[in-house]
Amino acid sequence: MQDKPLRKTKGRGPLARDPENLVAYLGPRGSYTEEATFSYFSRASYRFMDRPTIGHVFQTVRDLGSHGVVPVENSIEGPVNQTLDLLWEYDLFIAGEVELAIQHCLLAREGTRLKSIGRVYSHPNALGQCGRFLRTRLPGASLHEVESTSKAAMLASRRHGSAAIAGHRAAREYGLRIIAKRVQDHPNNYTRFIVLSRREAPKSSSAKTSIIFGTAHLPGALWRALEPFARGRINLTKIESRPIKSKPWEYAFYVDFEGHGEAQGPREALRRLGQQATFVKLLGSYSRSSRYGS
Amino acid sequence: MQDKPLRKTKGRGPLARDPENLVAYLGPRGSYTEEATFSYFSRASYRFMDRPTIGHVFQTVRDLGSHGVVPVENSIEGPVNQTLDLLWEYDLFIAGEVELAIQHCLLAREGTRLKSIGRVYSHPNALGQCGRFLRTRLPGASLHEVESTSKAAMLASRRHGSAAIAGHRAAREYGLRIIAKRVQDHPNNYTRFIVLSRREAPKSSSAKTSIIFGTAHLPGALWRALEPFARGRINLTKIESRPIKSKPWEYAFYVDFEGHGEAQGPREALRRLGQQATFVKLLGSYSRSSRYGS
Repeated sequence: MQDKPLRKTKGRGPLARDPENLVAYLGPRGSYTEEATFSYFSRASYRFMDRPTIGHVFQTVRDLGSHGVVPVENSIEGPVNQTLDLLWEYDLFIAGEVELAIQHCLLAREGTRLKSIGRVYSHPNALGQCGRFLRTRLPGASLHEVESTSKAAMLASRRHGSAAIAGHRAAREYGLRIIAKRVQDHPNNYTRFIVLSRREAPKSSSAKTSIIFGTAHLPGALWRALEPFARGRINLTKIESRPIKSKPWEYAFYVDFEGHGEAQGPREALRRLGQQATFVKLLGSYSRSSRYGS
Repeated sequence: MQDKPLRKTKGRGPLARDPENLVAYLGPRGSYTEEATFSYFSRASYRFMDRPTIGHVFQTVRDLGSHGVVPVENSIEGPVNQTLDLLWEYDLFIAGEVELAIQHCLLAREGTRLKSIGRVYSHPNALGQCGRFLRTRLPGASLHEVESTSKAAMLASRRHGSAAIAGHRAAREYGLRIIAKRVQDHPNNYTRFIVLSRREAPKSSSAKTSIIFGTAHLPGALWRALEPFARGRINLTKIESRPIKSKPWEYAFYVDFEGHGEAQGPREALRRLGQQATFVKLLGSYSRSSRYGS
């Protein structure tokens, strides 16, 4: 993968051209994914590239052999379906995860007062998560849905009397002031991000494993697929179903469980799952997240 | 619930004021939900009310004692999370289901030719489902996301050189011509809708049942919850997990299974599930859908 001659180009350090040190993440700049990315990857050792969609992040990881960071699940909204579907389509590994406390802020230009705000921009999910604040503190403002919280901040920076619901990084990125902090309805608002890679993660002691499998369309099929994990006392931290697009009302199951896929118990459970399931795809074993964010 | 004196008002038949004969559905007019609604409820016997959001449909059913129709799942996109979350919040029953083949069309004003189309409006899901058609037949057109396919048709009716991806009902509703039919990438594109009611459905022979339950955060908990269904050879047609908003990374499970909840096998399985689960909510037993649409 590594392009040795390029690494000797004059005036460029090895990091600049080594695709292994490139991290693609879901942008734009100032996004929550950027915050998760910087909490996981040291800025001294990596180059970063913001990509416009989750699909672009997967592509970049596949084509440039880099790492990637995308959201996979939010504790209020549930799964990010596009990420789940692309994990099936692409042959990439999950090499890590990051969990971030989402703290929505109300951002506006310097000198803007709460009373003078007539319009609020944000992503539909963020507007939904801040319904109580918006109804009680900004009852007269019109709400405008845009494709990301960063885009909302950018729009608010261009227009007097407007504001954005976004993270504190977006305030810095677009030169806005934080008018109000923690404006979300649910205090327990976390997003889990995954780190994509073309390689498996090095073996870690505190591991979890992600897999996708299919079951036959028979009574008890899912129960029989889960049996090896129950018998092995392996804790499932997550189970999701996603439709198989070519087969209406058939599903693939996304499961996360505690333990490394090569440890004795999980290895045996995976072997027995392989006998029950119509297919099993191993997405990777990786360190469990710490929780970041204030 | 019924307001007897009103039913005698001069010039109005009993149907006009009987809330039981009112059906609220996710609009606007011309939507796929409208098509599903009219395929299920006879237009001779019911009054219909289009509502702007899924939340408004639930509210209307609760407050007016009517029926309601909302989408619950698409064979490409997966579940409609808002519907799942509201099934938990509201105490309503599922009294029926409708399955509709989604046939996206390209609609434009009379006299518009494919070559002259510079912009295409639709819901983001519909644009995504017609990617191949749009790339190959309309490579130069700009794509504009709006909140529903009906809204897209309305916008296309107002502007020369624009088109909408929407259903054939929307063409009729907004006086547009169908320029191309079946423009979606996947031929197997179905949406399942549920019929909401304040009452349980009458007992039917071809029944399925929908429930929500929670499990303890222990290894094997989900497997043990599913065991009574596997032992009873009861086929699960669907399992979804949704986050419990107040408890990060804990989940409620939405399960559909074949059979009536009061039939002997399912009743015993539900009794045993009740001993395992942290809670069980019975959403209702109802007739399985026929498939509608061309």
